[in-house]
Amino acid sequence: MKLSEVASILQCEFHGKDIEIIGMNTLKDAKENEVSFVSNSKYVKDLKDTNAAAVILSENLASELSVKSSPLVTENPYWSMAILSKYFAPPIEDTKLPQPKIGKNCNISQQATIANGAVIGDNCTILAHVYIGAEVTIGNNTVIYPSVTVYRDCKIGNDCMIHANTVIGSDGFGFATNNLGEHKKIYQNGNVVIEDDVEIGSNTSIDRAVFGSTLIKKGVRIDNLVQIGHNCEIGEYCVMVSQVGLAGSSKFGRNVVMGGQAAASGHLEVAAFSTFAARSGITNSIKEPGKTYAGFPLMGHRQWLKLQAKLARLIK
Amino acid sequence: MKLSEVASILQCEFHGKDIEIIGMNTLKDAKENEVSFVSNSKYVKDLKDTNAAAVILSENLASELSVKSSPLVTENPYWSMAILSKYFAPPIEDTKLPQPKIGKNCNISQQATIANGAVIGDNCTILAHVYIGAEVTIGNNTVIYPSVTVYRDCKIGNDCMIHANTVIGSDGFGFATNNLGEHKKIYQNGNVVIEDDVEIGSNTSIDRAVFGSTLIKKGVRIDNLVQIGHNCEIGEYCVMVSQVGLAGSSKFGRNVVMGGQAAASGHLEVAAFSTFAARSGITNSIKEPGKTYAGFPLMGHRQWLKLQAKLARLIK
Amino acid sequence: MKLSEVASILQCEFHGKDIEIIGMNTLKDAKENEVSFVSNSKYVKDLKDTNAAAVILSENLASELSVKSSPLVTENPYWSMAILSKYFAPPIEDTKLPQPKIGKNCNISQQATIANGAVIGDNCTILAHVYIGAEVTIGNNTVIYPSVTVYRDCKIGNDCMIHANTVIGSDGFGFATNNLGEHKKIYQNGNVVIEDDVEIGSNTSIDRAVFGSTLIKKGVRIDNLVQIGHNCEIGEYCVMVSQVGLAGSSKFGRNVVMGGQAAASGHLEVAAFSTFAARSGITNSIKEPGKTYAGFPLMGHRQWLKLQAKLARLIK
Repeated sequence: MKLSEVASILQCEFHGKDIEIIGMNTLKDAKENEVSFVSNSKYVKDLKDTNAAAVILSENLASELSVKSSPLVTENPYWSMAILSKYFAPPIEDTKLPQPKIGKNCNISQQATIANGAVIGDNCTILAHVYIGAEVTIGNNTVIYPSVTVYRDCKIGNDCMIHANTVIGSDGFGFATNNLGEHKKIYQNGNVVIEDDVEIGSNTSIDRAVFGSTLIKKGVRIDNLVQIGHNCEIGEYCVMVSQVGLAGSSKFGRNVVMGGQAAASGHLEVAAFSTFAARSGITNSIKEPGKTYAGFPLMGHRQWLKLQAKLARLIK
Repeated sequence: MKLSEVASILQCEFHGKDIEIIGMNTLKDAKENEVSFVSNSKYVKDLKDTNAAAVILSENLASELSVKSSPLVTENPYWSMAILSKYFAPPIEDTKLPQPKIGKNCNISQQATIANGAVIGDNCTILAHVYIGAEVTIGNNTVIYPSVTVYRDCKIGNDCMIHANTVIGSDGFGFATNNLGEHKKIYQNGNVVIEDDVEIGSNTSIDRAVFGSTLIKKGVRIDNLVQIGHNCEIGEYCVMVSQVGLAGSSKFGRNVVMGGQAAASGHLEVAAFSTFAARSGITNSIKEPGKTYAGFPLMGHRQWLKLQAKLARLIK
Repeated sequence: MKLSEVASILQCEFHGKDIEIIGMNTLKDAKENEVSFVSNSKYVKDLKDTNAAAVILSENLASELSVKSSPLVTENPYWSMAILSKYFAPPIEDTKLPQPKIGKNCNISQQATIANGAVIGDNCTILAHVYIGAEVTIGNNTVIYPSVTVYRDCKIGNDCMIHANTVIGSDGFGFATNNLGEHKKIYQNGNVVIEDDVEIGSNTSIDRAVFGSTLIKKGVRIDNLVQIGHNCEIGEYCVMVSQVGLAGSSKFGRNVVMGGQAAASGHLEVAAFSTFAARSGITNSIKEPGKTYAGFPLMGHRQWLKLQAKLARLIK
């Protein structure tokens, strides 16, 4: 799509070079043929260095933008971004893509559905009622149990096991809200990348990224009924016990363990080898590695025990 | 079924006009060809005005019943109601219903299953392994991702998106228990109604109503792994973040926001524009609109912060 | 597999009778043609009485072992057990098993998948996209809604109802971890046994046992999005409300009620007729039957109310 068409969709003015735009991205990651946006003051600092062809922003920020980039001034940039995201969403399936490519020695159920453009490695087992979306790639020796859904563009490594009815790559929970309280969907045009030797339980949901990838690194173990939000990064050998819930964009170091029903809010960094007791609620980044925590609000595990002892005394 | 047959199933006496009965309902909503019941003292006041053909009740309440209605006296009215509910449950599928009716320009997977009696609008996308039950109706432009199950009689509006492996219309959690501790299923003969422009995440469960409808109004956004109990009403543009759990029969005003893992017990009313922090637990109705809450037990968000500060001091 | 092959897989020495080994089991339950292991000091006491053909253990425990059993000494017995578990895992499906056997008067969808070796009773309804694994048995009058997955070897009784997208028999969350923080899967070679008259909601996960069975007894009611860990035993007529989470190996007496989002840690015993309020967290066994609890940490329900009143006063 031409940049002039983008401006026309957003009903905003546009002056500059009318180049072909292939997608949307963050200010930091946008390439010279992508459009970006700013709707959070935290990212204003990235305006001056962005490579984006154009940036959707409010009028007062136009002067901060790199001269290489064209401003697209709108009243509600987040809402405008949501409108535009739909235009860059790929089709869910695409019959023009090549027939799926299946490796040697696979056992693929006749009742599974493999969309065009998918590539599956050697020695894989894919059971009945599994859905493998367009352009998904799966490595070797991976087992996918019945009724798993893998949305388009996701990547699964070697030696993985995904249990029944789990969903990989459903849309992240993203929308803009206007001043009437109405919502507009932000299409989630990223994907999920699962590295090698990952096991994921049943009825778990791992959302695709809005841009880029939700990343599950090597050796991770995820239990049943777990929620992994869009753009999270789960470090090597992390352990997420049943019913854990992670909001979006948090980054976990290696071997982090979260007990059952524990949760983390979004945009955090959690140091390697941290352990969180069942029902912990993480709301701030953890910088020191290797400690054990509990509670909500979160505190050191020993402090939590001390607090519970104090509370017990209150009712004696 | 004749009213005399109803009495015979419940092994109770019956005097009155032996009319044809077509279903069961609450005292308030029952029509002249429906049977109702009372098992909770809260509803005794509705006995005198009910239009029900007959009411299952305990002997001591028979005198409170409207003269237009026949009493069906049993020892455990709730148990009797459960027994009777099975007789009014429609068949799960019905080959006598007409072939499904599909609108123009739809993309329906060959691996999807559409039961007889279903009606699907124009421009819909229904992916593989989806199940659309008997007499379900779906509007225009709606997208249903793989392995979604929509139980019979549910209604989905225009411009909706339902993510993979979500279940719409599974039975509400209803049963009677006798004094031996045994349970008897209450068949859930209502449905789920989803209005226009609703997006629902993956692995979410929305239960059908016991009578009437579980209602999800226009513009609602529901995330992954959310539980919506039977007979809830979710107001326009509400936002339910991942792993939220709602018990039955609660009614949420418009633009209510519930953070991750928040929950509400049953039979509450929650005022519009209320916001609940992650893990909030709502156990009482909220009458004043537009406030922010946290904690379990629930309190104002500021009070919650104050309480946490006090607790932190306890362990210093 | 010969015992000498077992020793060779584990790269450990072996002296003794080279008998045929058919599986693995706990020290207590192992038969004379099974291998066992000890990795937890709690079970050292069982070494002297085990009937296992051989036991994987650390060098210092070899002298405690019954003379009838051969020691298999390794540095990390739990890791060794994990390695060996893979060799005793049955194939997911097996074309050499007999065609599935279906009882009289069943209604089995053409879009359901029934693996070889399965046996289904009379008057069952199995809807579209259901997967019934190898050697699963199902009793009479049982209804299984769309996209339910039942893994191999599980048993479901008479008069059960399993709602859509629920998973019975996915692998328990079991793995050994070495001192580099890497994980090794412990294959879960047990099953799930569901007795008669059990109703299970939608999107629920019940994990198979590592050895033996996860057991759901007669008349149990389980709601949506519930997690039941491997080797749990749920007593007759128990009620598990939505989003309850149970870790592994806990044993619940009859008519235990757990409210929404309540949870229990592993290896507990909970007395009959105990009631747990929503969000309760059980971390110790409950010996006295018939009491009501709340909170996390768990306390008597009245104490919990008292504590909340005290806390409310703190912020006045």
